Amino acid sequence: MVGYAFMGAAHSQGWRTAGRVFDLPLRPAMAAVCGRDGSAVRAAADRLGWAAAETDWRTLIRRDDVQLVDICTPGDSHAEIAIAALDAGKHVLCEKPLANSVEEAEAMAAAARRARARGQLAMVGFNYRRVPAMALARQMVADGRLGTVRHVRVTYLQDWLVDPDFPLTWRLDRAQAGSGALGDLGAHIVDLAQYVAGEPVVGVSAMTETFVRERPLLTGASAGLSAAGGAGKGPVTVDDAAVFTARLASGALASFEATRFAAGRKNALRLELNGEKGSLAFDLERLNELSFHDHTEPAASSGFRRILVTEGDHPYLEAWWPPGHGLGYEHTFVHQARDLVHAIATGTEPAPSFADGLQVQRVLAAVEESAEKNSAYTPIPALEAQD
Amino acid sequence: MVGYAFMGAAHSQGWRTAGRVFDLPLRPAMAAVCGRDGSAVRAAADRLGWAAAETDWRTLIRRDDVQLVDICTPGDSHAEIAIAALDAGKHVLCEKPLANSVEEAEAMAAAARRARARGQLAMVGFNYRRVPAMALARQMVADGRLGTVRHVRVTYLQDWLVDPDFPLTWRLDRAQAGSGALGDLGAHIVDLAQYVAGEPVVGVSAMTETFVRERPLLTGASAGLSAAGGAGKGPVTVDDAAVFTARLASGALASFEATRFAAGRKNALRLELNGEKGSLAFDLERLNELSFHDHTEPAASSGFRRILVTEGDHPYLEAWWPPGHGLGYEHTFVHQARDLVHAIATGTEPAPSFADGLQVQRVLAAVEESAEKNSAYTPIPALEAQD
Amino acid sequence: MVGYAFMGAAHSQGWRTAGRVFDLPLRPAMAAVCGRDGSAVRAAADRLGWAAAETDWRTLIRRDDVQLVDICTPGDSHAEIAIAALDAGKHVLCEKPLANSVEEAEAMAAAARRARARGQLAMVGFNYRRVPAMALARQMVADGRLGTVRHVRVTYLQDWLVDPDFPLTWRLDRAQAGSGALGDLGAHIVDLAQYVAGEPVVGVSAMTETFVRERPLLTGASAGLSAAGGAGKGPVTVDDAAVFTARLASGALASFEATRFAAGRKNALRLELNGEKGSLAFDLERLNELSFHDHTEPAASSGFRRILVTEGDHPYLEAWWPPGHGLGYEHTFVHQARDLVHAIATGTEPAPSFADGLQVQRVLAAVEESAEKNSAYTPIPALEAQD
Amino acid sequence: MVGYAFMGAAHSQGWRTAGRVFDLPLRPAMAAVCGRDGSAVRAAADRLGWAAAETDWRTLIRRDDVQLVDICTPGDSHAEIAIAALDAGKHVLCEKPLANSVEEAEAMAAAARRARARGQLAMVGFNYRRVPAMALARQMVADGRLGTVRHVRVTYLQDWLVDPDFPLTWRLDRAQAGSGALGDLGAHIVDLAQYVAGEPVVGVSAMTETFVRERPLLTGASAGLSAAGGAGKGPVTVDDAAVFTARLASGALASFEATRFAAGRKNALRLELNGEKGSLAFDLERLNELSFHDHTEPAASSGFRRILVTEGDHPYLEAWWPPGHGLGYEHTFVHQARDLVHAIATGTEPAPSFADGLQVQRVLAAVEESAEKNSAYTPIPALEAQD
Repeated sequence: MVGYAFMGAAHSQGWRTAGRVFDLPLRPAMAAVCGRDGSAVRAAADRLGWAAAETDWRTLIRRDDVQLVDICTPGDSHAEIAIAALDAGKHVLCEKPLANSVEEAEAMAAAARRARARGQLAMVGFNYRRVPAMALARQMVADGRLGTVRHVRVTYLQDWLVDPDFPLTWRLDRAQAGSGALGDLGAHIVDLAQYVAGEPVVGVSAMTETFVRERPLLTGASAGLSAAGGAGKGPVTVDDAAVFTARLASGALASFEATRFAAGRKNALRLELNGEKGSLAFDLERLNELSFHDHTEPAASSGFRRILVTEGDHPYLEAWWPPGHGLGYEHTFVHQARDLVHAIATGTEPAPSFADGLQVQRVLAAVEESAEKNSAYTPIPALEAQD
Repeated sequence: MVGYAFMGAAHSQGWRTAGRVFDLPLRPAMAAVCGRDGSAVRAAADRLGWAAAETDWRTLIRRDDVQLVDICTPGDSHAEIAIAALDAGKHVLCEKPLANSVEEAEAMAAAARRARARGQLAMVGFNYRRVPAMALARQMVADGRLGTVRHVRVTYLQDWLVDPDFPLTWRLDRAQAGSGALGDLGAHIVDLAQYVAGEPVVGVSAMTETFVRERPLLTGASAGLSAAGGAGKGPVTVDDAAVFTARLASGALASFEATRFAAGRKNALRLELNGEKGSLAFDLERLNELSFHDHTEPAASSGFRRILVTEGDHPYLEAWWPPGHGLGYEHTFVHQARDLVHAIATGTEPAPSFADGLQVQRVLAAVEESAEKNSAYTPIPALEAQD
Repeated sequence: MVGYAFMGAAHSQGWRTAGRVFDLPLRPAMAAVCGRDGSAVRAAADRLGWAAAETDWRTLIRRDDVQLVDICTPGDSHAEIAIAALDAGKHVLCEKPLANSVEEAEAMAAAARRARARGQLAMVGFNYRRVPAMALARQMVADGRLGTVRHVRVTYLQDWLVDPDFPLTWRLDRAQAGSGALGDLGAHIVDLAQYVAGEPVVGVSAMTETFVRERPLLTGASAGLSAAGGAGKGPVTVDDAAVFTARLASGALASFEATRFAAGRKNALRLELNGEKGSLAFDLERLNELSFHDHTEPAASSGFRRILVTEGDHPYLEAWWPPGHGLGYEHTFVHQARDLVHAIATGTEPAPSFADGLQVQRVLAAVEESAEKNSAYTPIPALEAQD
Repeated sequence: MVGYAFMGAAHSQGWRTAGRVFDLPLRPAMAAVCGRDGSAVRAAADRLGWAAAETDWRTLIRRDDVQLVDICTPGDSHAEIAIAALDAGKHVLCEKPLANSVEEAEAMAAAARRARARGQLAMVGFNYRRVPAMALARQMVADGRLGTVRHVRVTYLQDWLVDPDFPLTWRLDRAQAGSGALGDLGAHIVDLAQYVAGEPVVGVSAMTETFVRERPLLTGASAGLSAAGGAGKGPVTVDDAAVFTARLASGALASFEATRFAAGRKNALRLELNGEKGSLAFDLERLNELSFHDHTEPAASSGFRRILVTEGDHPYLEAWWPPGHGLGYEHTFVHQARDLVHAIATGTEPAPSFADGLQVQRVLAAVEESAEKNSAYTPIPALEAQD
C-alpha cells in the first residue's frame, strides 16, 4: 500500500478484516506500506498491521512478495504509480478519482488494458458501490423494479469548509487535488449514479463556485509546510461547490450537486431514482437503509418503504451480523478487498475498472468545461469499444 | 370568485373560514361565484357558500356588491379578467402563475400599478408563502440565523403523469396552461425560494423534457371534448419536467427541479438553504415541520432540529390549536384571505404583488429560453424601479 | 352546542365545514350556542357562526329548532346535560371522556339506550378515530393485513406541564376534570387502541404519578378565580402521568403511556400494532402518514412503508384535495360531523357510542384501581349484552 | 476466548481491531480460543485470528499466556467458567446476561470482589453502553442537560420468532438460556436505561407471554440434536415477550418492552428520556444518531435535533473517520476491548462490573416474580455497600 493517511487507514482495515469475515479463495498478506517519512511510515506499519515499511514506492513495486499495489495517495501521483505498478506486473487498486486529468486517466486505462492482456487486474476505489444498500439498488434497477428511469437526483453535501478560517490543505490546491468538491465528492456521485442507473451520463450543464477564495496557510509539520506562518493567507485554487444537470443515455434527466458548504450536512450523499414502475432513495448518513417505492402496487397502500439492508440475502450480508445490526463506513473497504481478491483468484475483470474511472473523469472534465462556457450543454465522449 | 374547481373550492374554504378563526378588521362576504355553465355554477354556489352565481365574469365585475375579484381560472384567462377587474375598480386576487407569458404578466403588473394609484390592490396566489413553516423560515433568514446563504435547493415532485395512459387534460395543453410542470410547480418553487432567501434569481441554466409525447384524449362532458373518443391520442404540448440551476443575487448557487414523473412523490415540495451560520430544510408533505441547523453551536451537540411549527408565537398560529395539533393544505388559503383582508383594510401593498408574479414569470421564461439554447446561462432582467 | 372554548371552536369548524365539503343527506344549521357569560357567548356566536346564543343549557335543549345537542364542556357536566338532552328528545354528541366516573357513564349509556328506542342517537367525541390514517388502520386490521395481533403499544405524550410554574387550571382539578393525563390523553389512546385493534382491553396493571404536587393559583377573570393572587399555590389533585400494561381479548400484550411531562413532545399520540402478518405505526404529529410493514413479503425487499393517507380512495379523502395535500387536526371534527349527520339521516347507530365511551371509562377506572392496589392486574368488566 | 459463535465472532473483531485503531497502553494478543468440537474450534481459530485452539476451558484458563478470559458461551456456563477463571488469577470479560439466576450472579459478583482484591478485574459485556450515542447520552444526563428525569421508555423489538415454524434453538430453552426475550433483550435495556439515566430501577410491575408454545425441533448437527426429526415439536420454555413498568430511584416512571414478535422491527432498541430541561431519544437501528431536545430554548425555535454522533469529540470517535462516516454494530466490541485494556493497564474497575450485572439480574428476577404474582409491584433489593 502506498500512503497511510485517512484512506490508508481505511484500506488497512479492509485488508485486515476481509479474510476474517468472508470465505476468500486467497488470503491477503499485508506485506508492506510505503511513505516518504521513514519513522512515520514505520509507526504506521506497526499500527496498521503491515509487515514492512518502505519509503520509495519504486522499491515497493519491485518487491517479490508484492502482487497487488494499493494506491492511497493524493490524485497527482496516481497515474505515475499505477502505470509503473501495472507495467511491473502487479495488480493495482487505485483510490478515486482515478486521476487529476482526462489525459492521465486515459494513460492509466491504456496501461490497464495492456496489463489485463498479461493477467494483471486494475480496479478503482469507488467504495460506495460496496455499501450493501447501493449494491441492492443496482440489483433492483437491473431486475426492472423501476422500469424506465425518468429522474436521477444526487447530492453529496459536506460542511467542513463553511468556516472561512479553515486552513488551506492539499485538497484545496489544484496542483495536488485536481479539483475541489467536484473531484472529491462529485466523482463519487457520478460513478454511483451511473452504477445504480446502469447507464452513462451523456452530457452536462454546470455551474461551479469558490465561495471563499483565500484561506489561512497551514502551519506545522503535519502539512509539510513548516515555513508558512498562520498569519498568511493563500489562494484556494479549486471549486467549493459544483451543481450540474445532466442527461443519461436513456433520456433520463439528472441533477448533481457536490459541496463542502452545506452547514449541518456531514456526509449527505443522497441519491434518488424515479422510474415508471418505482423509485429508490438513499442517504449515506443512514447507510443501512434503502427506501423503495413500488409504483405497481395500489396507491392506497403504497409508499416509500424503508428496507433495512441487513438481511442475510442482501449483498455482502451473508458474512456479517443478524438483521438490524448495521454496518459502518469502513465496511465498504472490507467489501472492496473481498471483491478484488475474488477477481484476482478467478481472473475476472473487477468493477469499477480503470475504464470506468476514465469515464467518470470525462464527466468531470465536461462539468468544468461547461462551467467555463456559460453552462452550455457539453456532451461526454463515449468510451471506445476496446474499453 | 371566478372559477370553482380545485382552486375555487380551496379559496372558498379560505373565505368561509378566515373571519371565523382570525380577528379581521373587515368581515368578507361571499357575494357571487362565476362560471360558464349556469346549473353547475349555481350548484357550486350553494355547495361552497356563495350568495349568488354568475355566468359571465364581465357581469360579475360590474356588481356593486363586489369589491374584490378572486380569479381561480386556468392561466390563459388571468390577464384579461384581472386587468378588467382592476380597471373596474376592484381589488384582485389572482391564482398563480400570474399569466401564461411575460407580456401578459407585464400588462397585469402595469394594471396593478395604475390601480394602486387609485387605491385598489392586487395580489398573486402563491399560497405556500402562507404555510407557517415557510413564513417562519423567511423570518429566520431575515433575522440572520443563516448568515450569508451559499446554497438553495428546491424540488417540487409529483407523480400523477407517470402512467402513460393518464389522459390529456387542460394542464397538458400549452394554449391553456402556458407550460407544464414548469408553470404549475416551478412557479411555486421559484417564488418560494426567492421569498425565503429574500433575494431574486438572477440567471438560470435549464433542461426540460416531455417524456410522454402523446396521451389519450379526454372523453366526457367534464372535459368539454365530447367529440373525442378514448381511442384517440393527442400531443402533449408542455414540459413534463424541468431541471435548472441558478444563481441568486448574493452569489448563492441554487438548483430547482419540477416534475410530474417522480413515482411515489405526491407533493414533495422540498426546500433547503445552507448558510454560513445555519441551514433550513422543509418538505411540503410534512408541512407542520421546519428543520433548522444552528451552525454556531458546538458540533458535538448540534444537528438538524425538527421544529413543530405549531406554537402560539409562530406565524398564523395565534388563532389555531394547541402545540402539536397540525394544520393542513387549505389553511394556506385561510391565511391568504386573512392577509389580503388586512392589506385592504389598511391600504398597504399585499405580498406577493403582481410585480412579484411578473418576476417569477421572467424566471420561467428564462428557463424556457435556456432550455432551447442548449442550457446556456440566461440572465433574468431586473424589475424596473417602479415595480 | 354547549361550551365554546377550545373544543367548541373545533366543533364549530366541523359544523361549518362538513356540508361545504361533503355531500350530506342533511345540511346542519348552527342554531344556537350556550355559555354562562351572556356577552361572551354572544361574541362567540358571532365569531363562530351560530345563529343565536343562550346562557342556560336547559333553555337550549328545549328549543324546537334544536335537534342535536353538542356538549363541549368539562367532564363534570357531561352526564347531566347529556341525559337531559336525550330525555328531551334530542340527539347528542358528547365530548370525551364520556364522564368523570363509571357511574355517570353507566347512567349516560342507559339514557342512550332509552333514547335509541325512541329514535334519538348518542355519540361520544373520540375524534381521532376520524383521522384518515386511523380509519385506514382499522380497515387494514379488519381486512386481516396484520393477522393475529401480538403487541399494541400506544403513547400520548405532551409537555405543557413540564414547567412547575404553569398554573392550576380546571384540568388539574379532580372535581372538574375527573382525572389528569389519564382521562384527557389516556381516554383517547384506550379508545383508539381498541378501535384499531378491533378488540377490547380486558385487564390492566398501572402506575400513576403526580410529579408537581402544588402549582400557582390562576389569576384573572379568564379563570373565574379573581380572588386568587399569583403568589398563592394550590394542590394538583389529578395525575400528571399514567403508564400501564394491558391484555387484549385476543391475548395480545399492550402498553400505554399518557403524560404531560414529555419535554419536546407536543402531541405525540403514537400507536403501533405488531401482528403475525404485518405491523402498523402512527404518530399524530405526522397525522397524514401511516407506516405499514407487510410481513408476508420477502424480507430482502420489505420494510415499513410510509403511506401518505391522502389518496382519493382513503377514508374521508374523496372530498378533499389531491394526493399529498395533507389535512390538519380540525378535519377530524369535520369528519365527525359528517358521520353523525349520516347516522341521523339513516337512523343507524353512530360509533363510538355511549356504550363505547362507558367501556373506556371502565378501563380508566381499572387503571386508577390498579395504581392504588400496588399495580395488581385488574380485569375490566365486559359490557352487558344490551350494550 | 471461550465460544466462537455469533458473540465469539463479534468479540474477535473487537480484539483484532482495538489496537489497530486506538492507541492502547497494552496490545492484546489473541492467544487461544476454546470450544468443545476440536476441528471446528481449530477452523474458528484460523478464521478469526486466534493463535491456538483448546477444547476444554479448564485447560484454557490454566495457560500462562492467558491473562484475560473472554466468555462468549450461553448463560448456563457463565458462572462456572467466570468464577474458575477469576479464581485462577485471570481477568474476565463475560457476555451478558451475567448469569441465568440471581444466585449465580451473586456468586460471580462475590468472586469478582475477591479477585479485585488480588488485582484481577471482571467486566460484563453490555456492549450497547459503547455505542457512541449512548455514551454521549450518559454524558449529557450527567452534565445536567435533562435536569430531573421524569420518564424513561425503552423497547427492544425484534421479529425473528414471528414465524411459528421457526425451530427450537437453545435460546428458547430455559435450561440453557435462563429466560427468553427478557434475559436476551430485556437485560440490555435494563442496563442501558440505568446507565443513561444514572440511577437504578427500584421496582417493577410486569407481564410476560409465550405466544407460540410449541415449535419444531431442530434438525442437523449444527444443533447437536441429530436424533431429532423435523416432524417433531417441543415446548418453548421461555418468554416470547415481556412488558413492564418501573420506578427509578428518583421517582421517574419507566416502561420497558422486550419482544421477538414485533414484525418488521429488526433490532429496535429504542430509548427515550424526558427531563425537566430536555429529552433524549435513540434507536439502535440508526445507531449513529442521537435526538436531543433542549427544553431551555424558546419553544418557537426548539425541537428534537438529530445529532450525528460522528464528531471527533464524541466518545470513541477520536480514532475513527471524519464526521458523517458512521460506525456499525461491531464497533461496540472494539470499544469494549479498548476500555477493558485501559482498565487493566491502569488497574481501575471496569464498568459495567459484575455487581452491575448482578443488579440487572435482580431486576430481571423481579420482573419474573411480578409476572407470576398478578403483576404486583415488586421492589428490587439494593446492592450491598461492598458492591
